[in-house]
Amino acid sequence: MLNVGVIGASGYTGVELMRILWGHPEMRVELTTANQYVGEPVSRLYPSLAGFYQGAYETFDLGVIIERCDIVFSCLPHGESLKVVPELVDSGMKVVDLSADFRLKDAGEYQSWYGVVHTATELLEKAAYGLPEINREAVAAAGMTANPGCFPTGALIGMFPAAAAGLVDGTVIVDSKSGVSGAGRKLTLATHFPQTADSIEPYGVMGHRHLPEIRSQFRRLVGDAGADILFIPHLVPMNRGILSTIYIPLTEGHDYAKIRGIYEQAYEGEPFIHLLPSGSYPVTKAVQGSNNCHVGIAMPGCGKTLVVITAIDNLVKGASGEAVQNMNLMCGLPEEMGLAGPALFP
Amino acid sequence: MLNVGVIGASGYTGVELMRILWGHPEMRVELTTANQYVGEPVSRLYPSLAGFYQGAYETFDLGVIIERCDIVFSCLPHGESLKVVPELVDSGMKVVDLSADFRLKDAGEYQSWYGVVHTATELLEKAAYGLPEINREAVAAAGMTANPGCFPTGALIGMFPAAAAGLVDGTVIVDSKSGVSGAGRKLTLATHFPQTADSIEPYGVMGHRHLPEIRSQFRRLVGDAGADILFIPHLVPMNRGILSTIYIPLTEGHDYAKIRGIYEQAYEGEPFIHLLPSGSYPVTKAVQGSNNCHVGIAMPGCGKTLVVITAIDNLVKGASGEAVQNMNLMCGLPEEMGLAGPALFP
Amino acid sequence: MLNVGVIGASGYTGVELMRILWGHPEMRVELTTANQYVGEPVSRLYPSLAGFYQGAYETFDLGVIIERCDIVFSCLPHGESLKVVPELVDSGMKVVDLSADFRLKDAGEYQSWYGVVHTATELLEKAAYGLPEINREAVAAAGMTANPGCFPTGALIGMFPAAAAGLVDGTVIVDSKSGVSGAGRKLTLATHFPQTADSIEPYGVMGHRHLPEIRSQFRRLVGDAGADILFIPHLVPMNRGILSTIYIPLTEGHDYAKIRGIYEQAYEGEPFIHLLPSGSYPVTKAVQGSNNCHVGIAMPGCGKTLVVITAIDNLVKGASGEAVQNMNLMCGLPEEMGLAGPALFP
Amino acid sequence: MLNVGVIGASGYTGVELMRILWGHPEMRVELTTANQYVGEPVSRLYPSLAGFYQGAYETFDLGVIIERCDIVFSCLPHGESLKVVPELVDSGMKVVDLSADFRLKDAGEYQSWYGVVHTATELLEKAAYGLPEINREAVAAAGMTANPGCFPTGALIGMFPAAAAGLVDGTVIVDSKSGVSGAGRKLTLATHFPQTADSIEPYGVMGHRHLPEIRSQFRRLVGDAGADILFIPHLVPMNRGILSTIYIPLTEGHDYAKIRGIYEQAYEGEPFIHLLPSGSYPVTKAVQGSNNCHVGIAMPGCGKTLVVITAIDNLVKGASGEAVQNMNLMCGLPEEMGLAGPALFP
Repeated sequence: MLNVGVIGASGYTGVELMRILWGHPEMRVELTTANQYVGEPVSRLYPSLAGFYQGAYETFDLGVIIERCDIVFSCLPHGESLKVVPELVDSGMKVVDLSADFRLKDAGEYQSWYGVVHTATELLEKAAYGLPEINREAVAAAGMTANPGCFPTGALIGMFPAAAAGLVDGTVIVDSKSGVSGAGRKLTLATHFPQTADSIEPYGVMGHRHLPEIRSQFRRLVGDAGADILFIPHLVPMNRGILSTIYIPLTEGHDYAKIRGIYEQAYEGEPFIHLLPSGSYPVTKAVQGSNNCHVGIAMPGCGKTLVVITAIDNLVKGASGEAVQNMNLMCGLPEEMGLAGPALFP
Repeated sequence: MLNVGVIGASGYTGVELMRILWGHPEMRVELTTANQYVGEPVSRLYPSLAGFYQGAYETFDLGVIIERCDIVFSCLPHGESLKVVPELVDSGMKVVDLSADFRLKDAGEYQSWYGVVHTATELLEKAAYGLPEINREAVAAAGMTANPGCFPTGALIGMFPAAAAGLVDGTVIVDSKSGVSGAGRKLTLATHFPQTADSIEPYGVMGHRHLPEIRSQFRRLVGDAGADILFIPHLVPMNRGILSTIYIPLTEGHDYAKIRGIYEQAYEGEPFIHLLPSGSYPVTKAVQGSNNCHVGIAMPGCGKTLVVITAIDNLVKGASGEAVQNMNLMCGLPEEMGLAGPALFP
Repeated sequence: MLNVGVIGASGYTGVELMRILWGHPEMRVELTTANQYVGEPVSRLYPSLAGFYQGAYETFDLGVIIERCDIVFSCLPHGESLKVVPELVDSGMKVVDLSADFRLKDAGEYQSWYGVVHTATELLEKAAYGLPEINREAVAAAGMTANPGCFPTGALIGMFPAAAAGLVDGTVIVDSKSGVSGAGRKLTLATHFPQTADSIEPYGVMGHRHLPEIRSQFRRLVGDAGADILFIPHLVPMNRGILSTIYIPLTEGHDYAKIRGIYEQAYEGEPFIHLLPSGSYPVTKAVQGSNNCHVGIAMPGCGKTLVVITAIDNLVKGASGEAVQNMNLMCGLPEEMGLAGPALFP
Repeated sequence: MLNVGVIGASGYTGVELMRILWGHPEMRVELTTANQYVGEPVSRLYPSLAGFYQGAYETFDLGVIIERCDIVFSCLPHGESLKVVPELVDSGMKVVDLSADFRLKDAGEYQSWYGVVHTATELLEKAAYGLPEINREAVAAAGMTANPGCFPTGALIGMFPAAAAGLVDGTVIVDSKSGVSGAGRKLTLATHFPQTADSIEPYGVMGHRHLPEIRSQFRRLVGDAGADILFIPHLVPMNRGILSTIYIPLTEGHDYAKIRGIYEQAYEGEPFIHLLPSGSYPVTKAVQGSNNCHVGIAMPGCGKTLVVITAIDNLVKGASGEAVQNMNLMCGLPEEMGLAGPALFP
């Protein structure tokens, strides 16, 4: 049994990690930190954990963590993770970082999107990008993994088979629709119920922070020339879920049967990806609370555009579930351990 | 004061018409028909009208309608409207038809999308397409108007300035997000609360009936060559509202300032269209319950794609409000009569 | 045309007042204040007003208000209103105060519930309690009206016929269910979308501030002896609406027919109250966006308890609509002016 | 490993059973029947099960069930279960029936509320009422269990400590608020999204079918004299969850500390009931997707009324989870097997 530290554990990815780890046969939460809530029982903030976790939030203390924990999940905000993750990694612990601090390999690009100077560039080079479906071997070999953003997870799973097969010709449009939990527990007007309920709105239209992340991984697959990404997220009045509708302009000479074959082969054996039958398309509710990703593909109209639609739960496959999936790989455990199972429907 | 007949008045466009007409200074509902609910007080089906409308649903009877009504709104389903609208028009009444029966000029295309042989092709030729923003004169001169579909209204308002200015180069992608009232009052699994709440799903991926309508009006503006439309609607867990995110591939040599100028000029004087300031984008809630359409434009990324985002209330500007707007024009009344005013927010 | 000042106009009751007053034939908004947003166009905070109101928020300045306005609505928070309303009233303007500052006649009780020393007790004595249905004459004669709380409006409308007729025997239980807009625009964890959506929770269980208000008005009707109120509000994942389920223990010897007669008589002629037919019960959506109050009554079980259920829109009949209703009365205008009309359904 | 048959498995309690049983170490679903969907893969109706259950719905065939299954859950509607459950029980299989057919011991009362003549009165006498918290021994000894209704589960868990301790004096009011999944998968206007979203409404005001069930179990605890129940359910725009606010008139001479002690003792050792700390009250979201029941108690006002608030997930503790809990007991397995764990929050 591995003793787990969850640092920065007062947000939604923290409570989701604790829910998942409660059912993990080889990991148990030993310690949770949240400087804002030191001494407060976790189950006071999150009554869903009442009866399941007795502990209280503690101060972040490197020595204590090293002493009591075998592995660490960092749920700190960006700019904070890079201050503490290097030391944790140096101490020999496996770390999965759920922040954005180690997702972009280019420190300058990181600084321009996040407004923070990257002070841990050495670790940045070593960090594995934690999307097992495109990077499994690197994750399994890594001491530290940068857990992907929620939008990039859904977008990249939808795009990589087409990208890897050289089908993409031009600008890919990713029109994503996210539940509000993706914005976290921090209070903002955009997440205030009366503003957001019974309504839909776009945001980050001129450039969302997940765009460079999607683009950099996408370019690893297709090369730099020509290919580009246009990404517009929308806020949907629901708690969990991201639906990404991806419009991929195709190079010439492909029909649906061929492309379906490419997608089937690419996802074969993937434990969490489920390609829906032709004519069926994903619904976020069908993955709610699970680590599953549903994918549907179509070629409407004259066949020049491939439409790929993916659905994930942003807090599970888009955050905490994926983090456990990565940690399983890093620890040599079965990738699905503690994560398999159907969604909560309805 | 014009006496209004609303036929097929038991659905949501019917009750919305009655709400709007209650406040219209020159029109009053004289008669409502709904064969399924004959004798039932309208306010029993719709308690929101309790105290505002005493009448009961009546059987459809052409002679009675001609005798008691000056003008008619038809809310019958497609396939039903084309059976009765011609006679109403022949009797000399102005008619706005909210069904799809007179939206597509090509009877063959109508048949292939709606599965109904068009038996009123003569009237089809005369019917005006009731989107005043692109067809005002024809509507004002018409005896009968085909009220647009809800998706086409939002999509065409967003596209027409670019289309008319020759900016479009290639396939326009219209990614629309609709509230559930757009699916009407008919019970379906897709509109059953537990299936639809707290979730989002695409539908009509391989071809929605509003696609040929959008395409045919779009081609009137840009010609037949090259330009195409890819349209995917999504069902959002909200009551009212359509947000359309429109991706327009641009011909070369346009910058944002120029395109903004084109949009400003195109919408100038339009009573119901409001172009939001640069950097602001529409939210469906800000048009809820109103006939207003909000538009935001952006050129993210490298500037090869224009993003236009429009928001309407599908039951008002996307249906019953637009119908009254058309009828005002047809009757020589001020276009805004009974329709002006801010949305219900929040 | 009366020039209206709306002070403290950046919250939801402010924008709702502006929406209502836009359609009022005898009032126009001349001035809005909000110290936090001075200089900001109102339509920037509330795009629903784009095209309908050009003004920006101004600083509160007594002299300016007196100069430019004929009447004032105060939407300031409690504790702030009592500082400025007396001077406005002294200047001769009619004022409707939407805060809690003048609702409780007992300054000590006010202090104990709101934690603020009442510094305007002279005006407190003169203020009319602005629930026209039980206090019409006083409102019409008043220079200043304390607009009721949202819960008291729905609760008192449901109770007063029974109370006035001497039917109440024991503790009345008011179990209320409110939409989230009732909590205002201020950001709190309880109104953060992910906490509140798809869930229901009680609050103020041990004593909500609207309890003493309900109780004091109730006792004006039934006297002090014996009668008491138990009031528990709940937060429902919807924007607008309060449904109050009121359980009234009955004195002996009454049957349903008799009690229904009492309610019919009590509400007769009331412009905004609609008693639903026997067997029908209110739904908040059927009053959404309107100043209407729907009431249903029942005597289930052995007939010892009268169940009265009322539905209002908390921002209209529970706040800004009622404020305009009061102001109409105070200004000698028809009570329904600018307020009549059906709800937005669905 | 026990082979499980789920009959009438196409509704929400069916899919929820399959979700729960997927993770049960000693039970596996061998067979699902649904006469309406014979031959259709279960995962086609419920994509949440894609990859987790390969089977298709089968016709109901007693011989086949007896041959292939060790135990059976019946999710048939009332009136159908009583036709087939007796034979299943006679064949020696343990059966949990989720319908209402065996909940009321009085066949006449059953007939008057459900409109069906009870044709299996012999089994009715033997059936255990499956609320383990008040009937554990009987369930463990039973060959067949009547799984409680969703409202009775939440109501009775809240009431029984007070009832058993003799605290109740007069009519208990149960004001319940339910998510829409409680109404099942059958399409009705009341569960049509546009009617129900963003709104709240009462139903069953004059008498809901769960009332006699609550009352009969309540009277087993308190006796017949004097005590009564008034029960009004409300439909809340959320998927899952029932919050019951229970108003219990108290006999004299009890203070909060004493009553809290009674509740603590009553729930001690209960695996799924969690009494929240004083001053905290349940929220349905904190039990979503779990078999947990949260309880909060308070004595507001003058202390003559005890307020007990309970929250459950209607599909888990209110239906399928409780069914598995009962089956565990009947099969001599640990009561919590396959059911323990925290809720999905947010």
